[in-house]
Amino acid sequence: MMERLHRYDEELLLLEHTAAVLQWDQETFMPERAVEERSRQLSLLSEMMHRRITDPEIAAILHDLGADDAHPSGDPQLDPADRALVRRWWRQVSRMRKLPASWVKEFSELTSQAQVVWAQSRRNRDFSRFQTVLERIITMVRKKSELYGYEAHPYDPLLDEYEPDLTTERVESLFTPLKQDLVELLRRLEDTPAVEDRFLYQEYPADLQKHINTMVLEHMGFDWRRGRLDESAHPFTTALGADDVRITTRYHEPSGVSALFSAVHEGGHALYEQGARSGPLRGTSLGSGVSLALHESQSRLWEQMVGRSREFWIFWFPQFQQLFERQLQGVGLEQFLLAVNRVRPSCIRVDADEVTYSLHIMLRFELEKALVSGGLHAADLPHAWNEQMQSLVGSVPSHDGEGVLQDVHWSAGMFGYFPTYALGNLYAAQLYEQMNREIPDMRGQIVQGSYGEIHRWLKEQVHQWGGMYSSEELIHRVTGKPLDPGCFTGYLRRKYGVLYGV
Amino acid sequence: MMERLHRYDEELLLLEHTAAVLQWDQETFMPERAVEERSRQLSLLSEMMHRRITDPEIAAILHDLGADDAHPSGDPQLDPADRALVRRWWRQVSRMRKLPASWVKEFSELTSQAQVVWAQSRRNRDFSRFQTVLERIITMVRKKSELYGYEAHPYDPLLDEYEPDLTTERVESLFTPLKQDLVELLRRLEDTPAVEDRFLYQEYPADLQKHINTMVLEHMGFDWRRGRLDESAHPFTTALGADDVRITTRYHEPSGVSALFSAVHEGGHALYEQGARSGPLRGTSLGSGVSLALHESQSRLWEQMVGRSREFWIFWFPQFQQLFERQLQGVGLEQFLLAVNRVRPSCIRVDADEVTYSLHIMLRFELEKALVSGGLHAADLPHAWNEQMQSLVGSVPSHDGEGVLQDVHWSAGMFGYFPTYALGNLYAAQLYEQMNREIPDMRGQIVQGSYGEIHRWLKEQVHQWGGMYSSEELIHRVTGKPLDPGCFTGYLRRKYGVLYGV
Repeated sequence: MMERLHRYDEELLLLEHTAAVLQWDQETFMPERAVEERSRQLSLLSEMMHRRITDPEIAAILHDLGADDAHPSGDPQLDPADRALVRRWWRQVSRMRKLPASWVKEFSELTSQAQVVWAQSRRNRDFSRFQTVLERIITMVRKKSELYGYEAHPYDPLLDEYEPDLTTERVESLFTPLKQDLVELLRRLEDTPAVEDRFLYQEYPADLQKHINTMVLEHMGFDWRRGRLDESAHPFTTALGADDVRITTRYHEPSGVSALFSAVHEGGHALYEQGARSGPLRGTSLGSGVSLALHESQSRLWEQMVGRSREFWIFWFPQFQQLFERQLQGVGLEQFLLAVNRVRPSCIRVDADEVTYSLHIMLRFELEKALVSGGLHAADLPHAWNEQMQSLVGSVPSHDGEGVLQDVHWSAGMFGYFPTYALGNLYAAQLYEQMNREIPDMRGQIVQGSYGEIHRWLKEQVHQWGGMYSSEELIHRVTGKPLDPGCFTGYLRRKYGVLYGV
Repeated sequence: MMERLHRYDEELLLLEHTAAVLQWDQETFMPERAVEERSRQLSLLSEMMHRRITDPEIAAILHDLGADDAHPSGDPQLDPADRALVRRWWRQVSRMRKLPASWVKEFSELTSQAQVVWAQSRRNRDFSRFQTVLERIITMVRKKSELYGYEAHPYDPLLDEYEPDLTTERVESLFTPLKQDLVELLRRLEDTPAVEDRFLYQEYPADLQKHINTMVLEHMGFDWRRGRLDESAHPFTTALGADDVRITTRYHEPSGVSALFSAVHEGGHALYEQGARSGPLRGTSLGSGVSLALHESQSRLWEQMVGRSREFWIFWFPQFQQLFERQLQGVGLEQFLLAVNRVRPSCIRVDADEVTYSLHIMLRFELEKALVSGGLHAADLPHAWNEQMQSLVGSVPSHDGEGVLQDVHWSAGMFGYFPTYALGNLYAAQLYEQMNREIPDMRGQIVQGSYGEIHRWLKEQVHQWGGMYSSEELIHRVTGKPLDPGCFTGYLRRKYGVLYGV
């Protein structure tokens, strides 16, 4: 019976990878006019995948394997990897069966229409046009929450969709101390002198940027026989097969280093996928990153903790200076480090630094909870947004385009997604602390541009386990304690204490 | 009912294009290790397509539309485009139903194994290893011919597979006069002095080649919003959607112009697909080239008749000289024209010039006919090959690697394919002759680097009709007579008469 589940799993995986090839091509090389048919190709594939997940055959297989609401991992006699696979499928199948086909179709049509309205509203800086369609989305999302069912909070099943087993209560227990620490750290940094970073905002030739990005990824241990680096409008990582993990970055950015940080960020995602896909779970849907938060932990660990560290730049700055002689004339390592770690409250989440970033997430978390529970209406959203932005980040958007309309997520119906970004930071810091303890002279190795042991440690501790354990289970196994926001704030305090001398 | 056929047709087309995206990626950008899973993704897709073609539902739809062996186009009341679509589907479905699933599976396994054996045998220049597996392929191909059924010759249903309605008798009626004319022309060219063409065989920088290839395709009218040009080991054209036709070429060739001729050749295929896909049959499986021979006519017309003409190079040679100053030092237009039109009997088909190329095809046609009818055994093939090569082309291979083992087709089970290459030349010449009559000052336009009217004429006369008419019907509609090999030999006599003064 497990064999039948494995065959089913493999076929769905092949279809998912097929869709990933089509999407990757769409974002990188596809000619402009091809977009209309490509979306029909992709909807045919997603229809075929949906048909497989809702097929009575898979329900029967899971039933025969002993899976039900009380036993989501099936028969206790099965070995642990098989139980994890049963659990994954049970979760997927039972959730999908709770949503009527009519709801799925209506939601997909509504959100694809809403994304167009949102883009226009953002351009026109006018929330009112978006408000009507957002109200309909919120109504449908609340309906989804009811269909899934919940005990404590209607926001719970939405969180669980992106981060299995995550609850509103758990997020609150993590965000409350985190918020206090971040606000306090921000206050201490307020009076430090402004950083001179204009040298970053000029032309850095794209071919030289590509050259150094490729070298850094090489040092990180990205396997070029099993992946590629290309360009796209928005950087992303995608898996097109067990041995095919591709990343993209972009070179037409305001800052001369953002393409590099994007490449390192996506590189972190990619190492996770390459590792999960060559471990013992290879070829199954468990051979992949376990959740959004843990995925984000891998990209953040490489981008922020490694990539923006003094040790990292001791190695790379001289090479950078050689490549970008004109742009970096008169700039020293200290100034460069301050510039790429500049803390500056901003209204825009994607421009936020490490210290303020999680505050942007908390704001969205509070608003989503209120919208879903009915305590806040769409009409009052811009006001609530600006008020919280003032009190959390200390900065008020000058119009809705850089306020409540800045993110695509709500127009796409993605409620419950945002918290995973902040959790990624927390997982990253806790893993980094542990790694620091277990790898002797880790910082010395980073100074040498040598990341082999870091990569090996992550592979052994995290990557190879793929979807075997939940993120909270995994962090407990690796670090001996549950997720602890103190690791992240401790890391920030140490780093910015040294940088700014506070 | 036609609506149901259209929906069925559209879905199969979406799957075919999806497979084309996967194949294009495999040949251009895919990382090396991804090949194993990619082939499983592709076999899942081809299994799904096969299931659709053999589904009782499509048989019922065709039955309801009045299609049967006596009425392959269905109900005479249907409009012509609908009848053409019914015919296409009836052909596909009824052929596929004649082959047992066990035969299809065995043949697919046998040929994928045979291609590996063939590649080794060719490397080792040793036919004997390939012989055993070739014997099994021939047995299965003869069985296929019986399953399809035939009246006159067992080779007929094999020809028909690649070129609908083509028969052995028809090919013979075209090849007999063609052979006589070509052999006679070749004899006249024998005593002409050798052409000095060593300047072609040196380093031509790839980026400059890319630049000029892009310009030439631009002049041809290739629509970049609906297509791309990339690199691959073997040049090809593929359609990934109604608005997505991509071509490839290669730059690491012995000769500095072969990438350009490849790009122009594939460009001819691509203009045909772009035209068929924007005409009235757009979005249906008829909105595509009608057959291999007519497709080859489009690529040959552009590559040979336009691309190797004096008029073409009067425009491009000065630009070529500017780009490749060192390589073309002291080379004039006359010498260049002689070099790119050099007639030199060779054992290798893909290296053959326009005059000898069709003779290579005739040899394969004669041998395939004999193998399929049982008049020739695989064991006697190398001897028969060398003998015919001597008598037709006047050149004997020094070993089987450049003789009987040179082509991949037989190991892939493709019997009946080769004749379409030579027919492509015949269709091309007949179309070119007609075009010359209907476009005033066509040669003057080519001298100006202006191909707009040629492209427009081809679109109107050929491209827009897609799969509406068979190739023979189409050539009759366009030129007022059946396919006539005299147009091709007339074209060759005039061209080489002027070039070599014979």
